[in-house]
Amino acid sequence: MNLMNKIQENNEIGHWSNYFSRNPKQRNKLHESDAELLEIPDSPDKYLAVTIDTVGEEITSGLYQDPYTMGWVTIMACLSDLAAVGATPLGVVISVSYEPFREKDFISEIARGMDEACRELEIFILGGDTNTTTTISLTACAFGLSERDRLMTRRGCRPGDEVFITGGAGSGNALGLVRLSQLSDDFYPESLYRPRVSLKAGRILSKYASCCMDTSDGVLTTLDQLMRLNNVGFDIDCRWEEILLPEVMELCNKTGTPPWMMLAGLHGEFLLMCSIPSHNVKKIRADLGSEGIDLIKVGKVKESPGITLNLLSGEKIDIDMAPVRNLLQTVNGDLDRYIQEFWNMGHKWGLNGPLKRDR
Amino acid sequence: MNLMNKIQENNEIGHWSNYFSRNPKQRNKLHESDAELLEIPDSPDKYLAVTIDTVGEEITSGLYQDPYTMGWVTIMACLSDLAAVGATPLGVVISVSYEPFREKDFISEIARGMDEACRELEIFILGGDTNTTTTISLTACAFGLSERDRLMTRRGCRPGDEVFITGGAGSGNALGLVRLSQLSDDFYPESLYRPRVSLKAGRILSKYASCCMDTSDGVLTTLDQLMRLNNVGFDIDCRWEEILLPEVMELCNKTGTPPWMMLAGLHGEFLLMCSIPSHNVKKIRADLGSEGIDLIKVGKVKESPGITLNLLSGEKIDIDMAPVRNLLQTVNGDLDRYIQEFWNMGHKWGLNGPLKRDR
Repeated sequence: MNLMNKIQENNEIGHWSNYFSRNPKQRNKLHESDAELLEIPDSPDKYLAVTIDTVGEEITSGLYQDPYTMGWVTIMACLSDLAAVGATPLGVVISVSYEPFREKDFISEIARGMDEACRELEIFILGGDTNTTTTISLTACAFGLSERDRLMTRRGCRPGDEVFITGGAGSGNALGLVRLSQLSDDFYPESLYRPRVSLKAGRILSKYASCCMDTSDGVLTTLDQLMRLNNVGFDIDCRWEEILLPEVMELCNKTGTPPWMMLAGLHGEFLLMCSIPSHNVKKIRADLGSEGIDLIKVGKVKESPGITLNLLSGEKIDIDMAPVRNLLQTVNGDLDRYIQEFWNMGHKWGLNGPLKRDR
Repeated sequence: MNLMNKIQENNEIGHWSNYFSRNPKQRNKLHESDAELLEIPDSPDKYLAVTIDTVGEEITSGLYQDPYTMGWVTIMACLSDLAAVGATPLGVVISVSYEPFREKDFISEIARGMDEACRELEIFILGGDTNTTTTISLTACAFGLSERDRLMTRRGCRPGDEVFITGGAGSGNALGLVRLSQLSDDFYPESLYRPRVSLKAGRILSKYASCCMDTSDGVLTTLDQLMRLNNVGFDIDCRWEEILLPEVMELCNKTGTPPWMMLAGLHGEFLLMCSIPSHNVKKIRADLGSEGIDLIKVGKVKESPGITLNLLSGEKIDIDMAPVRNLLQTVNGDLDRYIQEFWNMGHKWGLNGPLKRDR
C-alpha cells in the first residue's frame, strides 16, 4: 500500500495504529472502512459497527461559528460513518468539552443541534460525559449493526464500475471558502451547511455497491483515498451543474471561484460516494429512487491509478491530490497561505479557467 | 430525586439530558449506571453496555505530566465503567486531540500507555480519530456485553447491606495532593498512579451485589452519589490503615495530611465500590479471593440519608459532601483557594486532628 504513505493523515493514523495490536475478530483492516466492523458473540449474521468522531478544528479555526452547526455536525459526522458501512444504528454517546465561561445559551444551542440531528436520523443519545477545557471539542461515538452478507467497505471497486454520490456536493467547501476568504455571510450563510446523512441510502447501497466511503473530507479527497486503497484510477466527468448543489454553483459564479475548488477542498458534506458494477446501476437507482434518494454519477473506475478530470471542453487533466491533502501541514496551518497555494494548484492544473478571482 | 440537585455536576448532566429524548430500549435512567445499558435485537439475554470518557482537565491542570499516565488512564477510566456494570468488553475506539507542535516521543508515550492498559485488560483498540487542537484531550469509548439477569447499576442498596471497595484507595488523591501542594515528586511519584481496573471483579460482583459504582471521583464522592441516588445513608468505619494504600498512608504521615482527604478528594482510583447484602458477603469474598481480588469493607448502608464517619476514637461525625463536590466551581477554578477551603472543611468537621499541615 505504497500509495497510502503519500498522505500525511494516513501516516499519522498509521503511526498510532503501529502501537496497537489488532483484534482478530475485527473484520476491517486499517483505513479500509468508515466504521470499525467487529464480530460479536452469538450473532453469526451481524457485525457491530462502531465509529468515533471529534469536531474540534472546525470550531477553533472559526469555520463553525453557530453552536447549532457544531452540535448538528457532531452527530451527522459520526452517523455518516455508520451509513457508509450500511449499518443500522443502535445509539450514540457523546463527550462534550467547553470552557467554564461559556454562556448557557451557547451550550443549549449545541445541544439543540445535536438533538435535531438525532431526530432527523431517528436515533437516540444514550449518555455521555462533560468536561471543562480551554477550547470547545465535541465527540460522538456511534454504534450499530450491519449484515455480514452485505459487507460494504472502502475496498472492492473494479475498473469499469460506475462512481456515484448520493446528492449534490460542495456545501462544506462553500462554507470553507466564505470563511477563508473572509466573505460576508450573505454569500453563503452557515445555516445552509446542514449536511443530512442518509442511513437508508447506506443500507440500500450495501446490497450491490462494490465500495463506499463518505465524503466527509470532500469529493476529490474521497476519490483520492479510494484510489490509493484500491490501486485503481478514476475518470471524473466534470459536469459541475449536476455534481454541485445549485447554491454552491451560485456562490462560484458570484465570487469567480472555479468549481473544482468545491470538490477539492477538505471540508466535505457527508454524502456517500460509492462504486457500482454497471449491471447493478439500474436496480440500485430504482431502489434509491423509490426512497427519494438521489444518485449522481461522477465518473468511472479505470485501471491505472490516478484521477483524471474530463472537462466539458473535451480536455482531460490528470490531477494529484496529495499536495492538496497535505497542504495544511505544508503551510504550517497558515490559512492565508493555504488559500493562495490552493488557488495556485488550480492554476497549475489549468483548472481556474477564464474566471478571475479578483472581485 | 431532590438530593441529586445539590450537586452541580449532576445538574450539568441533567441540563444536557433535558435536551435529548430517551431511548425506550435503554435499561438505565439518567445517573443510574456507570455505563449505558441498551437492549439489542436478537439478544434476549444481554445488554450492550457503552461508555465514553475524556481525559482533559487532568492534563491541562497539570495533574498528569507524564504522557504514559495520560494514555493509561484514558483506557482504564473508560473500562472502569464497563467493570462497574459487570460487562465483558468487546472493544474500544479512541479520539485523540493534540497540538500540532507536540513531539513524536510525547505522542508515542501516550500511545504506549494506552496499549499497555489494553494488554493489561486483554482488550483491543479497534480504531479512532486524530485531531489537531490547542490542548491535549483524549477520549475513549468502550462497549461490551452484560447479562440481563445479572443487572448491576448504582441503584439497589438497602439498609443493612455492607459496603466494600475492591482494593486500597487514595492513589488518585495522593497524586492530587502532590500537585496542588507543589510537593516534590519524591513524595508520591506520578508513576505510582497506575489504576488497574478489574473486569473480573465486576463480573463476580454482578452475581450478588445490590449496587455498584466505580470510585473514579474518589471514595467519598462515590458514597455521596450512591446516597443521593438510593436515598439511604452510609456509616463509614474510618480504619484508614485498611482502606488506604500503604504508600498513601505514608504520604499522609510524611506530610501531615489528614487521611480523610485521600477519600474526600475528587481524583479517584477506579476501584469498584459495591453494596452486598450481608448473607452474600461470604460467598462473594470466596469467589473474589479465589481470583486474588481484595474486598475491603468500608462500612454499612443505613436508613437515613447522610454520611457518618465513625472514627477509631469512637466519635461519630456527619459530613456533607456537597460543598466538597461543588468546591471547584465555588472557588472558580482557583486551585490555591481550592486546597485551602478543602483543608478548612476538615477543620470544621474536626477531622484534621492533631496533625499539622505546616511542614
